[in-house]
Amino acid sequence: MRNLLMTVCYDGSNYYGFQTQPGGNTIQDCLEAAIQNLTGETVKIHGSGRTDAGVHARAQPFHFLTSSQIPVERWCLALNGRLPADIRVTSAKEVELDFHARRSAKRKTYRYTINANRFTDVFQRSYQLHHPGKLNVDAMREGLNCLLGTHDYTSFASRHSTKASHVRTIDETRIEVDMSLAVPGTRDQGVIHLYISGNGFLQHMVRIIVGTLLEVGQGKRPPEQMKQILEAKDRKAAGPTAESKGLMLWSVEYEQH
Amino acid sequence: MRNLLMTVCYDGSNYYGFQTQPGGNTIQDCLEAAIQNLTGETVKIHGSGRTDAGVHARAQPFHFLTSSQIPVERWCLALNGRLPADIRVTSAKEVELDFHARRSAKRKTYRYTINANRFTDVFQRSYQLHHPGKLNVDAMREGLNCLLGTHDYTSFASRHSTKASHVRTIDETRIEVDMSLAVPGTRDQGVIHLYISGNGFLQHMVRIIVGTLLEVGQGKRPPEQMKQILEAKDRKAAGPTAESKGLMLWSVEYEQH
Repeated sequence: MRNLLMTVCYDGSNYYGFQTQPGGNTIQDCLEAAIQNLTGETVKIHGSGRTDAGVHARAQPFHFLTSSQIPVERWCLALNGRLPADIRVTSAKEVELDFHARRSAKRKTYRYTINANRFTDVFQRSYQLHHPGKLNVDAMREGLNCLLGTHDYTSFASRHSTKASHVRTIDETRIEVDMSLAVPGTRDQGVIHLYISGNGFLQHMVRIIVGTLLEVGQGKRPPEQMKQILEAKDRKAAGPTAESKGLMLWSVEYEQH
Repeated sequence: MRNLLMTVCYDGSNYYGFQTQPGGNTIQDCLEAAIQNLTGETVKIHGSGRTDAGVHARAQPFHFLTSSQIPVERWCLALNGRLPADIRVTSAKEVELDFHARRSAKRKTYRYTINANRFTDVFQRSYQLHHPGKLNVDAMREGLNCLLGTHDYTSFASRHSTKASHVRTIDETRIEVDMSLAVPGTRDQGVIHLYISGNGFLQHMVRIIVGTLLEVGQGKRPPEQMKQILEAKDRKAAGPTAESKGLMLWSVEYEQH
């Protein structure tokens, strides 16, 4: 038996999320079907975490046990030939048998993208939230920085979260503004990329953070209110859940791999 | 009567090209329907040129005559609310009555994109030709430069071209290689963007140039053969027509606008 660690990149627009659902049509279903088609084995893959319906991944790691003897360097090409065009396996390696894509993960980074230009970018329309209204990015940055550190993130988690503890650590945040498509002399504000890194994320956590920061950016909440929202430990204290299509699982880091 | 010059950006994946066809489903049809819905007028728009089925445009200018008194600064938002998500009008201005989006055009630039990494980029999959095989980009650059100047481009034009003259001038070419997604130590060769500027382009001209340059890049033709292909004035002398999805109308320049 071998334990294979792979990375998959996907456009989540047409899927009900990463993890298998009763209704089917998930990234996991597609990957397991491709592996079965290739090896004849029925395997269960384990992702580094779930992504919701419509959320994308630049690099989602997953592992699975296989008795197949196909050399590790052949897997990507073989699986990609069996996957739909919006899912691509981009790396594969053999790891120790006790490696687990979720449990061994040390740090994850998500990116959320807001197009704050007047008009949507047709080529990026599935990967950006469009928000043409005025946004104060400095206030958003200040608000986001209030979340740095180890906190109970109950206020920023779905009410349906089943986790025993909502304590997580966010160790890095960054907001970059790309002005390359903004037309000078107009109300175009550029494309805003928010990066959030931490040791783990609760259900909807990044989307609720972004939904709340959008209210900060609009001046509806002062940036420092983010601290009071954390302290409230109440989902009602935070803003709405931002649309899934702007979110992308950016990277997952392991101790060794 | 006013003459309005607008710019439209579109993802051409789901359309039968820019110009109205008997079968419908073109960019022009969508724009004329949106204008009619907004103003009640039946107008005919004139693009700077056609784009084929599946070809995209970053900035395609078009003009039309209207008796509508809607202020020019309101048109983009009003039309975008009436257009599908893969078409966006990005600018609008009033021009002289004798201005013509095609006849007044002085210079056009097209971009063709080849993903020469091992795997497709799922997020750009509709806008790139995937060519994972070995390509000599320097040879492609040398071949492309052979086309600079004023020539009869019959060899690089569709046999169905109805133009009286196939003489055109290409005044600038450029090949850029973006290595940002290429994984070091693999056969990834980056994403290759070819830019071609000139005073006008024949049907399929950029795609036939790219299809021929791909053969140069693979070592099937020496770069200097591009000159002999030009001299042959025979479509059979050139290579195949590259897929439409990698092509994008990049910009169109006018004397004044």
